[in-house]
Formats: sequence, C-alpha cells, structure tokens
Amino acid sequence: MDKKYLKVKKRSDLEKILLDKFSVNIGKETCSIQDAVNQFSAIDYKAAFSIPSFRKSLVDGFAVHSKDVLGASPSNPVPLRLISTLKIGESCKEKLKRGETVYVPTGGVVPDGADSLVMIEHTQVQKNEVFVFRSVSPHENLIEVGEDIKKDAVILKKGDRITPQKVVLLRGFGLTEVEVFNKISIGIISTGDELVDSGPLKTGKIYDINGYAVFSEALNSAIFSPKFYGIVKDSKGELQKALNKALSENDIVIMSGGTSKGSFDFTVSVINKAGKPGVLIHGLHLSPGKPTVFGVVNQKLIVGLSGNPLASFLVFKYVVVPLIAKKIGLKLKKYTVFATLNANVPSRKGREEFIVVRLIKRNNEFFAEPIFSESAFISVFIDGSGIIMIPLMSEGLTKGGKVEVILW
Amino acid sequence: MDKKYLKVKKRSDLEKILLDKFSVNIGKETCSIQDAVNQFSAIDYKAAFSIPSFRKSLVDGFAVHSKDVLGASPSNPVPLRLISTLKIGESCKEKLKRGETVYVPTGGVVPDGADSLVMIEHTQVQKNEVFVFRSVSPHENLIEVGEDIKKDAVILKKGDRITPQKVVLLRGFGLTEVEVFNKISIGIISTGDELVDSGPLKTGKIYDINGYAVFSEALNSAIFSPKFYGIVKDSKGELQKALNKALSENDIVIMSGGTSKGSFDFTVSVINKAGKPGVLIHGLHLSPGKPTVFGVVNQKLIVGLSGNPLASFLVFKYVVVPLIAKKIGLKLKKYTVFATLNANVPSRKGREEFIVVRLIKRNNEFFAEPIFSESAFISVFIDGSGIIMIPLMSEGLTKGGKVEVILW
Repeated sequence: MDKKYLKVKKRSDLEKILLDKFSVNIGKETCSIQDAVNQFSAIDYKAAFSIPSFRKSLVDGFAVHSKDVLGASPSNPVPLRLISTLKIGESCKEKLKRGETVYVPTGGVVPDGADSLVMIEHTQVQKNEVFVFRSVSPHENLIEVGEDIKKDAVILKKGDRITPQKVVLLRGFGLTEVEVFNKISIGIISTGDELVDSGPLKTGKIYDINGYAVFSEALNSAIFSPKFYGIVKDSKGELQKALNKALSENDIVIMSGGTSKGSFDFTVSVINKAGKPGVLIHGLHLSPGKPTVFGVVNQKLIVGLSGNPLASFLVFKYVVVPLIAKKIGLKLKKYTVFATLNANVPSRKGREEFIVVRLIKRNNEFFAEPIFSESAFISVFIDGSGIIMIPLMSEGLTKGGKVEVILW
Repeated sequence: MDKKYLKVKKRSDLEKILLDKFSVNIGKETCSIQDAVNQFSAIDYKAAFSIPSFRKSLVDGFAVHSKDVLGASPSNPVPLRLISTLKIGESCKEKLKRGETVYVPTGGVVPDGADSLVMIEHTQVQKNEVFVFRSVSPHENLIEVGEDIKKDAVILKKGDRITPQKVVLLRGFGLTEVEVFNKISIGIISTGDELVDSGPLKTGKIYDINGYAVFSEALNSAIFSPKFYGIVKDSKGELQKALNKALSENDIVIMSGGTSKGSFDFTVSVINKAGKPGVLIHGLHLSPGKPTVFGVVNQKLIVGLSGNPLASFLVFKYVVVPLIAKKIGLKLKKYTVFATLNANVPSRKGREEFIVVRLIKRNNEFFAEPIFSESAFISVFIDGSGIIMIPLMSEGLTKGGKVEVILW
C-alpha cells in the first residue's frame, strides 16, 4: 500500500491532528466603535453599571404614590399638587411626598418616593393642581434600575462577532472604542500550468478561479487579511520559491493546486521541503475535496486545496476557516435551516460528502434540492443556497428525509 | 380627531406611499474583483463563453474511441498506439484515429475524435503501446463543452450581492473588474436632551445608542456610506440646522428622536419646515416603532425613528433599509427559519408587532422563545436571534404554532 494513504484522514480528525501543531500570532487592537462592525471582540465585555441606571418612566405622565390615586375615576378625580415639571434628562432633588406629583416625560427620571406614573391622558392640569382620573398599580408605567441589564452581566464575549446588535449593547455603556482581534495574514498561491489570470484563452487553458475565491472568502469571513501571490507554474522550483516567500510573510498559506495529479504531488513535495514537520494530512475522506493536503512548517499552517473550484471553495469555507477560527476561539456566523430532501442522494460509505442544494420555500416549509452533476464545477454557484453534509458511514440520504442545510 | 392620526400607516402601505416620492442618486463604479466582495452588482453578467470551453478530462487517463476498447479486460487487453502525452493546459492538433490513444491529465483537453477516457489505473504502458484492461462507454470520464455553464447564461444579476460564490462564477470568465453600485450617503442625527456621547453619566442622562446603531447597521447592510452628525439637543433651531446640513450632504437622512414625545414633535416640525412635501407618514401601526416619521424633502427621504433603541434598530433594519433597497433594486440577504413557538404571544388587532426571539435547536428542530418585556430595551440583543412578525389583524400567536423567524 502506498505510504501516503496512511495520511488520508476524516474531517472529524483534523482538529485532533492539527490544532496543537500550528499557532497563529493574533494580536489585538483598539478600534473606534464605528469601525468595529463585523470584527471580532478580543475581550469579554461586562455591564459597567445597571441599565436603566435610574428609575425610568415609560410614559409621558405624572409620578405619584399609587396609594394617593386609589379609586380615582372620571367621576371621582383625585387632586395632587404639582411640585415640578421635569424635562427629559432632568431629575428632581426631593423625595415625592404624599399628595404631591411631578410631571415626567417618557424616558425621564421618576422621583424618589413615587412608585408609579399616571399617563397624561388620564389627568387634567389646572394651575398647580393635577386631577387624576384613573388609579394605577405600584410599579405601573416605570422600569426599575437594572430591569433591562444588571451590572456585571456579560454583554459580549471574547471571540464574538461585533454585530450592529452588539454595538447597541456596547453603546448602552457609552463605549466609543472596543478591543478587537487583528486580522490574520493569509498568503494565497494558485498553481497550475493551465491557469491564466486574464486576457484571451487558448484551448486547454482556464482562468484562475481558486486564488480569487479563497481571497474573497477570506475577506468575507472577516478573519483574514489575504495577500495573493499570483499564479505559479507546475514547477517545483517556482512553487518552492513562492511558498517560502508566502510563509515568511504570513501566518497561514493556502495553495490551490492545479487540477492534475502531478500538480498535487508538487504541492506535497514543496510543503515537505519547506520545513518540519511538513505534510501531516495527505487527503481527506471527503468528496469533493479528497486531494487536500494539510501541513505545518515552523508552526505555520499550510493547506493545499484541490484544483477543482467547487472542492477548493467548499473545503476552504467549511473545513479550513472553521479550523482556524477554532484555534483562535472566534465564533463564526453559521445559518442553518432544516429542510425536506426532494431527491435521493446516494453516497459511498467511508467518505463524507458535501452536496450543494437549492433551497425552495413552499407552504411554510423548506425543501432541499440537491445539485449533483459531475460537471457542475462552478454552475452550482448560480443558484445553490448552501450545502448538506452526508456523514462518513452513510450510504446516502432518502427523498423525503429531513436534512440540515448550512446556508451560504 | 387629531389630524396627524390620519397619517398613521401600515407598514404594508409604505412602498405605495413613498417609493415614487423620493429618489436616490446611486452611481456605479468599476472596482477590482478583490474589492467587490459584499458589494452589489450594478449590471447583469452573462457567460461570455461556454464552460468548459473545451472537452475536458475528469481523470488522469487515455483518450480513446470507446469502440476500440469494447470488451477489453485484464485477460483480454486491447493495445492502442500512444501518439501523444499531453500535459495540463496543452492540446493535441490532430484528430484521434481509430486504434490510437493520447494521454490526458485531469482537467486536460480531450482530443477530437476521442469520445471517452480510460483511467490510467486500468491500463499498462509499454513504450508506445497502451494496453487497456477495461471498456468504457461513450462520454465516460469527460465533460463536454458547456456542460457546466452555457454561453449567455446569466451568472449574476443587477442588484445581486457579490458573494465569494459569485466571485467563483465571475472568475470562470476571467473578470478582474466588476461594475458595482456606489454606496448611498446617509446622514445620521441623534436628538434628545438626555443623550450623552461618552464620559460620566449624570442621573437622567443616557448614552446615545441609536446614532451608532443606525451607523453600524448602515455599514453592515453594505448599501450605505454613513456620516454621523452627532447629538442635537431638543431645540427646533439646532435640529433644523443639523437636518438642513445633513440634507445638503446626503441622499438620505435618519434622525433618531429622543424618547420623549416633545422630541418627536420637534422631528416632525423640522422635517416639515425643511421643504416640500415634508412629513408623509406620521406613525406606523407597528409595535415597537409606532412613533416613526417618514418625510420627503427635495426628493430626499428623511426618517425620524423612535428614541427607544429596540424600536429604532428594528424599524431601521426591517423597514427602512428594505424600503431603500427596494427603491434601488438591491437584493438583501435574508435568512429565515421556521420554528415552533414555545410560548403564547398575545397581540393587539390593528397593529403589527415585531417580537424578538431566541432560537433553540433541539432534535433537528428549531424552537422560538419570545423575549417580551416592557423593560428589555437593549438586553434583547444579548441573546436574541432574530424576530418574528405578528400580522396586523392577528390577535396573537399560539404556543406550538409554526413561525417564520427572520435571523439577524
């Protein structure tokens, strides 16, 4: 048996094999909260104080002792003495006495002593007297200190993505800057004698897709700062030079191999020659994506992706990026839906499969239509919605069954 | 009846009332494909040629006339004359004659005349003779011109977001630049005497959340280039000045009002004073978000959002942004899942409701847990997953029912 087949691994073994072999020098930086959206928080954030920080009115109305207005009605209005009219942002120095009232706008500070508010609609003001036409319960129309968020509650965790929703939380505490993780530098190399960047195509040549696809997904993940090292011919010398340069300038290197087996072998060879320990995984029990190589050199992760654009993209997005995110502790956004499969999907026991599906919404239900064709290398991206994963030991999925679709 | 109540509208009427009243000067620009990710395409893209553009081998193997190897087996190998060994990216000038074969690597060009390939594993090469041990069917192990994408197929539509998946498609045709829509300038004003940007908080004051929340969501939507005009006090003069300035510098202006009704009235007044036609919608049959104002001045849309951070955020994200996207023809990303509601949600007939829910995944099913509390103005953002919408004429939703959750 060819020695290299000993290194064909299951996707589920990747973390065990690789996570403690490579390291990523990820720094932190302080950035303005306006620039923080979609970056990853580098620390835990806790509530610095309770919100609201004062007893807050939920209405435009009059703060009262609820006991004072017990039984108040239009035919039996209760008069109270108006001692102050607060504007928004203002507060009352004195404690409200029985028989007194203070006007408080929505969002305003409820004076000490008052336990509730009567809405302005249920009152009538005559000079310094307020006639109340309705009773209120204690606590009515106000919220207590900390009723929204208690001091010290965790509002954002290290590794969380800073969404606009999280900005709302951070701003509740007046933050104008946040600590975020730096981007990880990732070098990208495309290899293959058949690849052309642009311009007219001669027969047999194709445009480089994978270099750009990895670049774009690296940006899209918001984890990486990608740098493209261009297209390298199927020559060990040139490939070695490109890999060494990319390794010296980046934390991680992604090589997308040519489509031919020869090109794949070059990738393996130059990783091993770049340094120790070299190639650690040589092939995955995964389709598409079997010819994927993982290596480590000087603690830097190197991945050699298949030349097939579909395989290359899926493996980068669903295998490589999650592995790196796991290493650093970043929580990736992942949208999944459950759907009914509308076709049988045969599979071979002993290899996991990623199948691109189209999602169809019908009668409050999702249906997943597998797009399988040996020839759909890139057309799956026209209207594919995401992927389903067929487990390693499954012989396939049955039409009508429920599947989890990972949306892209 | 107060005249202004005539202008309280349903969310479903917004488009009818507003879409032809405002305009957005959205330009296009050419950008490098590396910078295009998550921007919106300004034109339709069609396949400039068929992919593959040549008959492509799916294996490392020998191109043959399938008729030549009919009945081939290990005990009955068929010898063929090897006339060429192609490398990746190379092609053969001559048509393959009966009895001949050519070596073609995976991804290589299948010579004219050949109708199939025999995998290298099922052959043995002796000098210029290739012994074939297995028969193949016509078309086996190759894909025809255009089998992946046919010339002129639409690969990306105007208004589509350029995801990494779309980059794969565009690169299949060698594009290095794409036409994208410019960002729309949006001016953001926060108003309210209670608002503070940062620093210590006096009783009754709160930090400005809404200005930053709208700013962040504007960036997150990838549609806008936001500019923040700071916090303006509840003074008609100052607010008018700020609005006029923002209007002169932006396509759209968003004002997030103070929490008090007085502040809301100021917003209405300054929009009307800024120009014609002024306020067109004065309140929505929506909770939260009733005190939302839509106006148009010199064909520019102005929105006055509620001061409540939850209302302000939800209305901007789920009402305002989709309205503007619709106006320009941009397709927004929207992830929804169906879930089982795990509590009753009462609602009032005659107003639509947005309810934030937590999504729980259990046994291949999603459950939606409504977070409702009068006091959860910002805590809903700690672990809320998205929203459900309760229709205008519904009296509520029942525990156990199925709901569609719009994820954020």
